[in-house]
Amino acid sequence: MERILIEKLMENEPSRISGWAQKIRDTKYMIFVILEDRTGSIQVSIDKEKNQDIVKTLDGVLANSVLSFEGKMVKSEYVKQGGKEFIPESVQVLSSAAAIPIDETANIDTRLDYRWIDLRSQKNHLQFAVQTAFVDGMRQFLLDEDFVEIHTPKLIATASESGSDVFEVKYFDRKAYLAQSPQFYKQMAMAAGFERIFEVAPAFRAENSNTNRHTTEFTSFDLEFAYIDSFEDVMDMEERLIIAGLENVKAKYAKEIKELFDVDVVIPTRPFPRIKLADLYAELSKRYGYVIPEHDVGDMNAETEKLTSRYAMEEFGHEFIFITDFAKTKRAFYHMRSNDVPQGYDLIWKGTEITTGAQREHRYEIIKKQAEEKGLGKDVEFYLEFFKYGCPPHGGFAIGVDRLTMLLLGIPSLKEEMFIFRGPSRLTP
Amino acid sequence: MERILIEKLMENEPSRISGWAQKIRDTKYMIFVILEDRTGSIQVSIDKEKNQDIVKTLDGVLANSVLSFEGKMVKSEYVKQGGKEFIPESVQVLSSAAAIPIDETANIDTRLDYRWIDLRSQKNHLQFAVQTAFVDGMRQFLLDEDFVEIHTPKLIATASESGSDVFEVKYFDRKAYLAQSPQFYKQMAMAAGFERIFEVAPAFRAENSNTNRHTTEFTSFDLEFAYIDSFEDVMDMEERLIIAGLENVKAKYAKEIKELFDVDVVIPTRPFPRIKLADLYAELSKRYGYVIPEHDVGDMNAETEKLTSRYAMEEFGHEFIFITDFAKTKRAFYHMRSNDVPQGYDLIWKGTEITTGAQREHRYEIIKKQAEEKGLGKDVEFYLEFFKYGCPPHGGFAIGVDRLTMLLLGIPSLKEEMFIFRGPSRLTP
Repeated sequence: MERILIEKLMENEPSRISGWAQKIRDTKYMIFVILEDRTGSIQVSIDKEKNQDIVKTLDGVLANSVLSFEGKMVKSEYVKQGGKEFIPESVQVLSSAAAIPIDETANIDTRLDYRWIDLRSQKNHLQFAVQTAFVDGMRQFLLDEDFVEIHTPKLIATASESGSDVFEVKYFDRKAYLAQSPQFYKQMAMAAGFERIFEVAPAFRAENSNTNRHTTEFTSFDLEFAYIDSFEDVMDMEERLIIAGLENVKAKYAKEIKELFDVDVVIPTRPFPRIKLADLYAELSKRYGYVIPEHDVGDMNAETEKLTSRYAMEEFGHEFIFITDFAKTKRAFYHMRSNDVPQGYDLIWKGTEITTGAQREHRYEIIKKQAEEKGLGKDVEFYLEFFKYGCPPHGGFAIGVDRLTMLLLGIPSLKEEMFIFRGPSRLTP
Repeated sequence: MERILIEKLMENEPSRISGWAQKIRDTKYMIFVILEDRTGSIQVSIDKEKNQDIVKTLDGVLANSVLSFEGKMVKSEYVKQGGKEFIPESVQVLSSAAAIPIDETANIDTRLDYRWIDLRSQKNHLQFAVQTAFVDGMRQFLLDEDFVEIHTPKLIATASESGSDVFEVKYFDRKAYLAQSPQFYKQMAMAAGFERIFEVAPAFRAENSNTNRHTTEFTSFDLEFAYIDSFEDVMDMEERLIIAGLENVKAKYAKEIKELFDVDVVIPTRPFPRIKLADLYAELSKRYGYVIPEHDVGDMNAETEKLTSRYAMEEFGHEFIFITDFAKTKRAFYHMRSNDVPQGYDLIWKGTEITTGAQREHRYEIIKKQAEEKGLGKDVEFYLEFFKYGCPPHGGFAIGVDRLTMLLLGIPSLKEEMFIFRGPSRLTP
């Protein structure tokens, strides 16, 4: 008999259901199994007298085993869970579980050791369904806007953008490195005449820091597009992209997210508020008495990000806010500058920076000079070549998919948000 | 003035167009520029007498520069290219190109050195649009089928499936490796109660071989799903997946593919033909006098793959064919076996294997034994743990996205198919 999903069960129809035994409770006359599949759960009620074969098969079988029952769903006023239960005629043990080595009291590191068990909850499954919908909504928006999806190499010959925080790979008889971002290759696509591209792929950072906001490997949603007039076009594109993602999430999962995460999915209005960094400093000082430390001047820090969201909500009633006009010393060499001001922005959401975006410098002589100013030599030589033989003006940005989901659902840490977290001291499972 | 795409130009409307100067031809009274954007190209006709400013600006500007013209499109019976031309009033040089260092006579390695220039053709742009549509068609099919997209780590603690051909990474004070496939983590998702998952991500192989079919890094489309009854369910899913991909490609690009690649996009009928390996050997021997060499018995090789496609076309009129019943010595330890026969398959398309799929062994004691038989010890210990605490029956497969596109369009080599190729002696650009 074909398996049927629990939410599709019809009253009194002979059916086969399969799933996890969440709980098995053995009483004097009855065995109760809470069976769960991806659509929900149901109580399976086994009359021990009538079903001696089933009782025998289930002897010694523990919760977390995977079972398949044939029988019928019936309505029952005695069952709390949805007022229905499943009356089986036979059972098959698809997988017999050993006693589970962790419980609710386990700390995060033990839970990560057994991540596949830790993930077994409706809430955790929802978080990946939500991420899927977020990314899919963004992808479909871009495809409708004529973007092409590319896949750029993660193995690269030189140490990329900054030279630090990069993983070294033994590549036959030489060294390679793991790309920290697809930045250079996104821009290569611009020089190759691809006017609009995006990529969703892993990015690697060899940062030896153990915080809730850092990971050595994450999923980066990157895009780049040509023939822009200024970085205003980039901010516009990002607004529309994020709205498309959130709309897809809201349409599919608003109710479940409210139920399991107690979060309302808010679709932001356009345009998102925008403020120059110097003006932001003034506002934060005036409103909250916060003065940024000397070494962070020209940039944001974690505290500034938090207060900026508070300001955006109080002043504009908005979850998002763009910050512009950073100091050139604090921005990458490939950001275009106008009167020495980098033509880019950070986007802040719920107290955290989620994006850096910019118009890029596409003129060979100027970008060469800007790279030299930052002391970048041979490592970026191959990249500078991209701009020598014609390249249209362009801009783009990157969003960390994991961070986005974490902020949307209010998950406290990347360790709990990612399918499998990677940090300096965490390479397993 | 806002830029307008060339295909959207309206006769006599004041417009601004931007794109690559494919060709610049300077004659006695006129300068002709063929300007191309992502939607097509048009001749820009500059009357030197009337447009002295433009002439001055274009002085010394070479083909492959990026230009923006304001003016009007007019119909003209003298222009071959679509019977229209653009009469400009002003020009802006967005990017001035140096003389291009390669031409049509350059060999593939020189072309790869300048990949961003090599990619500048309608044909090359089409091939990435086609790949985007293929993958998008497959993704949308899976989303409609309740699959969730996951992102598994590429940095792993042990040398993965086989122990050979794996890249080593310096990971702070220890070693890590680059995942050859997401196989183990796809299956972890099954043990975590995700019934249906997929991933599109890079995979890494440290194979020191320089052929047209090998690369050290490629994009793998992977999926895994639970509660299957046999590997027949996996083959069914793959048939439907591939059809969904091809249908999206056909709907969007059939005409352009015919025009630029001279290829008809054929939507295969279901079911795809299926044959057991031993029966296939008999057919190839009878029909083509081909006998597989001793060391390949129980498996396929390149010659067998070619002849198998010929057989599938001659016997079934079908581009695809599944081969089943391989020798257990030639299959991975995690394939389920029934009477010692691996419960999996290869899928052949256009003379090349594009997939290995299988039902996986999900029973802890059995998979442990099968791993030991293959001499796999400590490296897979963490993976075997996934099956200890309950795991439903499941199966899945992987498709190489690059190979798929290469076969669809008849592109002779991965070097020309991939955005940027990576091989043992190729790490740049």
